[in-house]
Amino acid sequence: MSTSRRAIDDRLNAFCQDTDAYLEGAASGPLAGLTFAAKDIFDVAGYVTGGGNPDWKATHAPAQRHAWAVQVLVEAGAAMVGKTLTDEITRGILGENAHYGVPVNPRAPGRVPGGSSSGSAAAVAGELVDFALGSDTGGSVRVPASFCGLYGMRPTHGRIPLDGVLLQAPSYDTVGWFTRDIDTFSRVGAVLLQSDMTAPPPRRLVIAADAFEVADPAVTAALRPIVEVVASLVGDTVTERLAPERLADWMDQQQVLQGREAWETAQDWIDQVNPRFSFEVTERYLTARSYTDAEVDDARRLRQTILTRMDLVLADRSVICLPTTPTPAPPVGERISARRELRSRISTLTCLGGTTGCPQLNLPLAEVDGLPCGLSLFGARGTDEQLIALAQEVAAKVQRR
Amino acid sequence: MSTSRRAIDDRLNAFCQDTDAYLEGAASGPLAGLTFAAKDIFDVAGYVTGGGNPDWKATHAPAQRHAWAVQVLVEAGAAMVGKTLTDEITRGILGENAHYGVPVNPRAPGRVPGGSSSGSAAAVAGELVDFALGSDTGGSVRVPASFCGLYGMRPTHGRIPLDGVLLQAPSYDTVGWFTRDIDTFSRVGAVLLQSDMTAPPPRRLVIAADAFEVADPAVTAALRPIVEVVASLVGDTVTERLAPERLADWMDQQQVLQGREAWETAQDWIDQVNPRFSFEVTERYLTARSYTDAEVDDARRLRQTILTRMDLVLADRSVICLPTTPTPAPPVGERISARRELRSRISTLTCLGGTTGCPQLNLPLAEVDGLPCGLSLFGARGTDEQLIALAQEVAAKVQRR
Repeated sequence: MSTSRRAIDDRLNAFCQDTDAYLEGAASGPLAGLTFAAKDIFDVAGYVTGGGNPDWKATHAPAQRHAWAVQVLVEAGAAMVGKTLTDEITRGILGENAHYGVPVNPRAPGRVPGGSSSGSAAAVAGELVDFALGSDTGGSVRVPASFCGLYGMRPTHGRIPLDGVLLQAPSYDTVGWFTRDIDTFSRVGAVLLQSDMTAPPPRRLVIAADAFEVADPAVTAALRPIVEVVASLVGDTVTERLAPERLADWMDQQQVLQGREAWETAQDWIDQVNPRFSFEVTERYLTARSYTDAEVDDARRLRQTILTRMDLVLADRSVICLPTTPTPAPPVGERISARRELRSRISTLTCLGGTTGCPQLNLPLAEVDGLPCGLSLFGARGTDEQLIALAQEVAAKVQRR
Repeated sequence: MSTSRRAIDDRLNAFCQDTDAYLEGAASGPLAGLTFAAKDIFDVAGYVTGGGNPDWKATHAPAQRHAWAVQVLVEAGAAMVGKTLTDEITRGILGENAHYGVPVNPRAPGRVPGGSSSGSAAAVAGELVDFALGSDTGGSVRVPASFCGLYGMRPTHGRIPLDGVLLQAPSYDTVGWFTRDIDTFSRVGAVLLQSDMTAPPPRRLVIAADAFEVADPAVTAALRPIVEVVASLVGDTVTERLAPERLADWMDQQQVLQGREAWETAQDWIDQVNPRFSFEVTERYLTARSYTDAEVDDARRLRQTILTRMDLVLADRSVICLPTTPTPAPPVGERISARRELRSRISTLTCLGGTTGCPQLNLPLAEVDGLPCGLSLFGARGTDEQLIALAQEVAAKVQRR
């Protein structure tokens, strides 16, 4: 590959302008000829990992070695052509970075790309690269995949090593990736999952009724034909509520546990540096700091209940489908108060992945008023390959129609 | 005056680098020949008032006219040679601005200048200008005056118009000024207070015992000789506790009421812009947002008690003396946690001025280990001229010794 960072016309503000990190891919390998970008939380030897925050960048040394995920992709022949914008310390799901701006959503101009893997999603959707690395703690791959119309996955927690990745909350952090097509998605997945990609097919489809209730009616309507395709491929289909009471309670539990862990992970650095964050990011850390031990204990108990319930739902090779996001991408630059409810609705859907550590894959096969809005396939821990294989079948069947 | 902004060698990082605001002084007038700087919360026609925060600056239009204080000073013959650094939206008392850096404290290298009128104090202490405008809501003139060894005053609330000043909490905001010598201080005061500066002398000195207990023993020891000079000039002297219980409770009351008002003043802009603040500044706003109406009511009741008590202490032309700050300037760049207690101690001393609206003047006549540390004169509302006249006598007597 002769593509270099400078050859990219970054009309999307997807790439970090303050680094020229570039890595040649190996001459041969399963990904030879492909280009990719890495969210600026992945270490590239010799460069400071910026994490979407200038004070993080100013207080850290250049990385000694590549992140594990970057290393295996380069060894597989892909060229890394740049680092991409991220929400500060990955704390955001809309993709508006107060320091570096908002990457353009090529599929929904004037609207956010989603975050925190905002630049990676924008770069892939805008065809600046073939694929991109992101990370997903509370929705940071799934949300931009839905908003930008991409295949994107949160894999099983722990499947892809986090070595060399800036951590937000390690019990929840995962490495994910984006592509425009499912075949490239599977090829990259084989490298990142270190897998031959064989998997037994699912036996049962669970349509998550309460998750669909969180979505706009127009989104539910737009996703219905895709759900039908999935159902036709899986066979046995049931419609079920996941949460015995409110799905929003599950979200609250995740906010507490992920928030507490994110605060514990960052607090020493924050205390030392007094960093500049957007108001919302500090608010998120301080909300997390305010949780009492009793609230944390309650959340831990609820988490156990959720794990038991979800094991039951996912038993016997079941796959769940649910809307990835409740709406398409909202406009750029809305007031904090105007988007508070939307953030909450988004997290109500994305909390399932973080809480269970289960894999979730976004199918970019629907639109509402021309705006992408994804359907998710969600499986038991370790069924990453099964979800990718099912996505291939769904994509093929949708294309034939 | 031919001095221009460019002629200033700002080796102190005292001036805003992103503006060349400069105003010629009137050809004649009581301040002809003097130069001054204005904290970047004072409007200068044609320039955007920055307020120490890049997002404030980016979301506001250039001022239509000069702030009242700037206007009268220029008409009195002084030339305004630049705008100076401030803590963000005046929310800070140490002078460390996360966006623009820390002005050098010329009297205490390696230590903070104090804030929020940090650049104004640094510019005067470093002899870059003859005097400078600051503002004081919770200590923002008094603290840098103490740390930089300057005459500095928080005048009676409402005496100097706030027209054209970026407001933090208008029930507490005041316009103040700094000089190196008391005679210039009085000349500038005559213009800002629109006064002939005549005033009846004080009849009684109250040494605030509980305020001195808040200070380091070394500070109390260093201030003692100055207190003695004041006592020798006033005559009748008593040592009294101001607060029947804890002075720190008075500080808590001020934090609640000033904090609530600062939040109400800024919240719409914050909601719209999601501005970048240092972690501590957002923390301060969010703490204020969290106060309950019951806490605010309690604070209002305590404020009434304090006003009654202070009226009694200040009756019959009494003047109080107290340490301006409990310590000299602390080092630059300390951890948030390391300076939390110091901030609290400083505010315990400065809360008296904000709560009562009374004037307070810093006498820069003492040092601890070579570091400036000021003594304050504090009088009843409207006795600004009395305090300045007393300060002149004290300075003269100290000089003669």
